[in-house]
Amino acid sequence: MNFTKMTGTGNDFVVIDDRENNYLGKEKEIALKLCDRHFSIGGDGVLLVRKSEKADTKMVIINSDGSRASMCGNGIRCFAKYVWDEKIVLTNPMTIETDDGIKKADLKVEDGKAKYVTINMGKPSLEPSTVSEKFDEKILDKKVNIKNKEYAITSFHMGVPHTMVFGKLDDYKIEEGKGIEKSDIFKAGTNVNFCEVVNKNKILVKTWERGAGATLACGTGSCASVIASNLLGYTGKEVEVVVPGGNIFIEIKEEGILMRGPANTCFRGEIDV
Amino acid sequence: MNFTKMTGTGNDFVVIDDRENNYLGKEKEIALKLCDRHFSIGGDGVLLVRKSEKADTKMVIINSDGSRASMCGNGIRCFAKYVWDEKIVLTNPMTIETDDGIKKADLKVEDGKAKYVTINMGKPSLEPSTVSEKFDEKILDKKVNIKNKEYAITSFHMGVPHTMVFGKLDDYKIEEGKGIEKSDIFKAGTNVNFCEVVNKNKILVKTWERGAGATLACGTGSCASVIASNLLGYTGKEVEVVVPGGNIFIEIKEEGILMRGPANTCFRGEIDV
Repeated sequence: MNFTKMTGTGNDFVVIDDRENNYLGKEKEIALKLCDRHFSIGGDGVLLVRKSEKADTKMVIINSDGSRASMCGNGIRCFAKYVWDEKIVLTNPMTIETDDGIKKADLKVEDGKAKYVTINMGKPSLEPSTVSEKFDEKILDKKVNIKNKEYAITSFHMGVPHTMVFGKLDDYKIEEGKGIEKSDIFKAGTNVNFCEVVNKNKILVKTWERGAGATLACGTGSCASVIASNLLGYTGKEVEVVVPGGNIFIEIKEEGILMRGPANTCFRGEIDV
Repeated sequence: MNFTKMTGTGNDFVVIDDRENNYLGKEKEIALKLCDRHFSIGGDGVLLVRKSEKADTKMVIINSDGSRASMCGNGIRCFAKYVWDEKIVLTNPMTIETDDGIKKADLKVEDGKAKYVTINMGKPSLEPSTVSEKFDEKILDKKVNIKNKEYAITSFHMGVPHTMVFGKLDDYKIEEGKGIEKSDIFKAGTNVNFCEVVNKNKILVKTWERGAGATLACGTGSCASVIASNLLGYTGKEVEVVVPGGNIFIEIKEEGILMRGPANTCFRGEIDV
């Protein structure tokens, strides 16, 4: 099997051209095998290229634990770069069918290769009941006490439940995210984004992902952090987000939240499966 | 750059044919770049194939942090398989120059490819001063108290300082290894091997590596565990060691400790550097 290993701000994927459906029904098995970091290629997930009847191409994402993901902001950038660089899709912008609907990807191309990819990540739901049953109004800068520490939280749904805590990053240990994730405030847990405002156009973010822990970058977390930062008056509508794995650019638009970020090809390889 | 990713009981390496010395003086840079698990190939280290004037071939090992290692039991098995499978060395057994002297590798070949590799790992030094200044006699099954828990330790030098604790694996958390490693009993720390005897020919081992933490397999730790187990009368001289990353076979011989274990090719690839 030929594969390409790619990374989007530190979230890494094994990308496979499966337009012939060779691995149909074997997705879980393939992902479990290929994502092992010590005995195989290693990765946060596998991205399969499939043919679509509704869009220019179709992305299937399988997490490293074999479960299927409906969408992944960092993954779809890698996917878009792959199908462009490999000349599988020749249109820019392109449409990509995912389990979360059809997404539009806009590529910034240099020397024939995609360098940055912009994705419309959709819109948040600020409705408090989407994340918690303990609040009657929007959860904006609400003081809560978790494990004997006071946090001012902003929580809403952006793809998954997200909670933002603003302050100096040095004032928080990323592991505090676990206590917040597991707090009985949230009905289904929450991703936690610790955010530090640098200026009107730039914030620093460290994300604790629900179920996964500290990560190098979280696409929906970057979107949620900028939405929160804008709602609280800290930043404007075009913001650079500095995460441990790189830089992501978020723009709040009427039609949705635009996320622009890098996608990189790490290497190409061949493996027996 | 072409590379091959290999694994020896879960210890994984990027192997590069550098007989032309293309990366001479750039070893650290190359290892730091290639061993990154999220932005590059990922691995515990890089193995460079170089020409030798004293042996059939020469192995240079660079750890993932860029430091140079003199020898690695799991690494040299992968290395031996590589130079055999790639027809760089045509003799079996073969001699391999390392920073720790010349090692002999004996290959079990199936269908033209090396499947298991036996390495003479040398001899232990039971001299207590090699690991601790607190004992006047050999450290065999000595009761010590560390962090308010009593352990019966057996400690000596086998490549690096090793301490064995026998019992049921379930009775110990691997993290207890850290307390033992850092105990003031040991002048330069110690690897810690928790060992459970299954029968006269089989033990289970979990290793806490000094500076590295819990690992899937430790070559010298497997050797030390079998030596200790034999000295204490639990096992004979030919013992199968079951570690989290697979099975290793140890034989105590007059000429040294023979370690036989698997070596596997994970995949081949090409990367821009």
